[in-house]
Amino acid sequence: MAKGKGQRRPKAETPKGFRDYFGEQVSARKAMLDKIAAVYHRYGFDALETSAVETVEALGKFLPDVDRPNEGVFAWEEDGDWLALRYDLTAPLARVAAQYRNDLPTPYRRYAMGPVWRNEKPGPGRFRQFYQCDADTVGAASVAADAEICAMLADALEAVGIERGDYVVRVNNRKVLNGVMEVAGILDPADPSKFEHERGIVLRAIDKLDRLGVEGVRALLGEGRKDESGDFTKGAGLGAAQIQTIMTFVDVSPQFGPEAQDRVKQVAASGRPKMFLGGSNPTRSALNFLSAVVSDSQQGQEGVEELRQISELVEAQGYGPDRIIIDPSVVRGLGYYTGPVYEAELTFEIKDDKGRPRQFGSVAGGGRYDDLVKRFTGQAVPATGVSIGVDRLLAALAAKGRLEAEAQGPVVVTVMDRNRMADYMGMVRDLRDAGIRAEMYLGNPKNFGNQLKYADKRRSPVAIIQGEDEAARGVVQVKDLILGAKLAQDASLEEWKSQPAQVKVPLAEMVATVREIMGRHG
Amino acid sequence: MAKGKGQRRPKAETPKGFRDYFGEQVSARKAMLDKIAAVYHRYGFDALETSAVETVEALGKFLPDVDRPNEGVFAWEEDGDWLALRYDLTAPLARVAAQYRNDLPTPYRRYAMGPVWRNEKPGPGRFRQFYQCDADTVGAASVAADAEICAMLADALEAVGIERGDYVVRVNNRKVLNGVMEVAGILDPADPSKFEHERGIVLRAIDKLDRLGVEGVRALLGEGRKDESGDFTKGAGLGAAQIQTIMTFVDVSPQFGPEAQDRVKQVAASGRPKMFLGGSNPTRSALNFLSAVVSDSQQGQEGVEELRQISELVEAQGYGPDRIIIDPSVVRGLGYYTGPVYEAELTFEIKDDKGRPRQFGSVAGGGRYDDLVKRFTGQAVPATGVSIGVDRLLAALAAKGRLEAEAQGPVVVTVMDRNRMADYMGMVRDLRDAGIRAEMYLGNPKNFGNQLKYADKRRSPVAIIQGEDEAARGVVQVKDLILGAKLAQDASLEEWKSQPAQVKVPLAEMVATVREIMGRHG
Repeated sequence: MAKGKGQRRPKAETPKGFRDYFGEQVSARKAMLDKIAAVYHRYGFDALETSAVETVEALGKFLPDVDRPNEGVFAWEEDGDWLALRYDLTAPLARVAAQYRNDLPTPYRRYAMGPVWRNEKPGPGRFRQFYQCDADTVGAASVAADAEICAMLADALEAVGIERGDYVVRVNNRKVLNGVMEVAGILDPADPSKFEHERGIVLRAIDKLDRLGVEGVRALLGEGRKDESGDFTKGAGLGAAQIQTIMTFVDVSPQFGPEAQDRVKQVAASGRPKMFLGGSNPTRSALNFLSAVVSDSQQGQEGVEELRQISELVEAQGYGPDRIIIDPSVVRGLGYYTGPVYEAELTFEIKDDKGRPRQFGSVAGGGRYDDLVKRFTGQAVPATGVSIGVDRLLAALAAKGRLEAEAQGPVVVTVMDRNRMADYMGMVRDLRDAGIRAEMYLGNPKNFGNQLKYADKRRSPVAIIQGEDEAARGVVQVKDLILGAKLAQDASLEEWKSQPAQVKVPLAEMVATVREIMGRHG
Repeated sequence: MAKGKGQRRPKAETPKGFRDYFGEQVSARKAMLDKIAAVYHRYGFDALETSAVETVEALGKFLPDVDRPNEGVFAWEEDGDWLALRYDLTAPLARVAAQYRNDLPTPYRRYAMGPVWRNEKPGPGRFRQFYQCDADTVGAASVAADAEICAMLADALEAVGIERGDYVVRVNNRKVLNGVMEVAGILDPADPSKFEHERGIVLRAIDKLDRLGVEGVRALLGEGRKDESGDFTKGAGLGAAQIQTIMTFVDVSPQFGPEAQDRVKQVAASGRPKMFLGGSNPTRSALNFLSAVVSDSQQGQEGVEELRQISELVEAQGYGPDRIIIDPSVVRGLGYYTGPVYEAELTFEIKDDKGRPRQFGSVAGGGRYDDLVKRFTGQAVPATGVSIGVDRLLAALAAKGRLEAEAQGPVVVTVMDRNRMADYMGMVRDLRDAGIRAEMYLGNPKNFGNQLKYADKRRSPVAIIQGEDEAARGVVQVKDLILGAKLAQDASLEEWKSQPAQVKVPLAEMVATVREIMGRHG
């Protein structure tokens, strides 16, 4: 098309993969985050808000499945340096822990809430800016820190309205996973770089147990797997004995006594085997079994011992298997985890796009990452933390009907006479001074119908009307819009008469009348 | 320097001009913004949170003093499109108003709070990411919308703790300014592009009246001005009559009656003349005077009429000249304002870097920008709004001692025996369940002194201690750290004895004892 004479108008659109949040979307998220922050605060965590922009070198390259430099982040060059938007809240925390290491308390417990940005291909429900809500403890080597965060995660979920029984915090340990890899012969403690590719495939396969089932995982550990569409994914190429070692670890339920088996059946509606913390016998037998599986790996034994400690610590605080369990299939994607890993899964069912029931799934995850701060300082600093997927959790609350939505809009004072705006503004003032959300109609007042349509769009509970007549007599019409809508829908003549949706009161009684009507509708 | 063998460590630093906010900085800002949001909400405004990233074309180029494309913003290219971080919250609102014009109520009242980014040269106290807190009404042509925002701004300042008398909202009108330009012969309604350069110099000069004084402004309107360092700034090159017209407008006090003069003296501690809204006589004479100055300009007359309406509307709501005044010297930098402009100034004195007293100055500003949405749709959409400089207002609250700072940290349960972590965790649980902020010491417990130093750094009010002895007898030591610090500083032997800073109580009484001690310290 040839260039026109006039200036081209800009498109009124967000860039692809970005979005806006309106009214209740903002306030519902804020209400949820405020509740989570209150839990974090009670646990002794302090707020931290880091800069949204970091140097690319400080951020590092820890995004999963990313090979090229600057891939996955939004980055730009400035005087030879590369800056980028943070892709999570953990990398900036590592930078802060290094930068302020002489000023911060040790350990440093902090929480952070805010947007992060990922330069990924946008898709349905897949956005390039989203909120995270993290809590981390930096400088605590003890797994008591991990246990605390698992307990705090359970508390946070309950605080926002996820009921006990509708979630479970699943715990595993990368050291146990590494131990299994050692036993299976694909991790050599003397040369950790060997078999890295194979281990990556194994971890991703275990992570997909939910979706692929035991046989699908088995196939990926071996030659590979053809999916429903016929696409073939190359596997890790392990031998039968290696596969058996790993599958025994992942699919541990047969090793348990009858008590444990029953609990497994109770909770694991997904059919996925789990080992429980809490009740001591099954936990003990589970840990003993894991210990046996990784008996030839020092790292594996360490990992089992850490899980044992975590189980004791959460048990001491009353967190039973209905809230926190050990689950060997928990992997967590990020490459930087070095010890315990955990995730919170919502266990209630929702319908998928095609109306089929499925578990809601994971809403939070984290783990121990003892090497992140070391990047900066050269000294190992133990750290562990969790990140809640804010949009996922909001979606869960919406699915459970637990979102705090505001039912009512403001009271609207209509404009019957545009020369008397000062009077209307005075009425609005009286309402606001009484703590009632209120506004004067600020559009073109000519068409009164538009004013009521506006009140309708705002979901106003009440409209105030004062024309020439009413003004002369010092009264106002107070219109109950909620009752009015109800009457308009299905009222009989008697109901119309007995419940007037509009009352005329002296101006001095306006505030009281409005309050009474709003109280009536809750 | 030759490159070493090892990988270079990344620097643990924010990029230049960026910063982090810790603990109380985050919560003090949140507390302040929550209060402002409550005022905005009561006025009928809805929350909006737009994407941080916009297309460069949607953002437009409205930053002051910016000539090159993409200057002033952080921008990067993606598949041929340029994306950028928003530089304010108004440009994204214009985009939203255009994008969702069929869904949003008209008028659309919204507030927004969040960071914005400017690619400017960083300096002391000058950051490239900072918070703004905006409220705007889109789709209301009536100056009642401007009057409402001025009143709301006053309410918001009082809600966060700025007392009446410590602030003033100053109102002017770009149309009046334009009228004066017309009368002075540097604005031709038939060809608005003529004299644009001169008008820019005039606006900037008026904006600096506070700093340069009347003579400095006069010089900038004429040939130019040499500052203290000897640097010469070229002026607008106006003639004596033109300068006189503009100065008469800016420096209006001689035109007022004695009553107005008195008020001017009362409030304008800066020596800067002001016309007051509120009391009707001075307001009327002020408006009549302005009307006379711009009598030859239709636009100027329109502007005076708008100021008259604003004065009536705020007066009807009880906002007197102690809160809202007309001030012809208000210019506001941004190029897009088309009608009323307003700013909130804090009038109390603080000390500058050199200990000299000066007024705190502006913390918020805004105005009417009827053409911003038109960029997208081709149709004029009237809009007006205000932006509060969040960091400035926080600094003001800090200067007035009004920041809500948390005095106390968490209760710290110390670790005397690392084999009994589960017991300590149980104590923490009891405290948290009682709503008391508490944590177990998670660092290396070997050195008990470090644990108390940690509690000190956290400003903990109380530490809990249970060694082998205490555990055997089912008791805990509850240490009052605030009293302890006081005694350590200045107590006599008698005081030490009569006020024990540490008490031994049965475990079952721990929570009650902690609560009692914390209550004692408020």
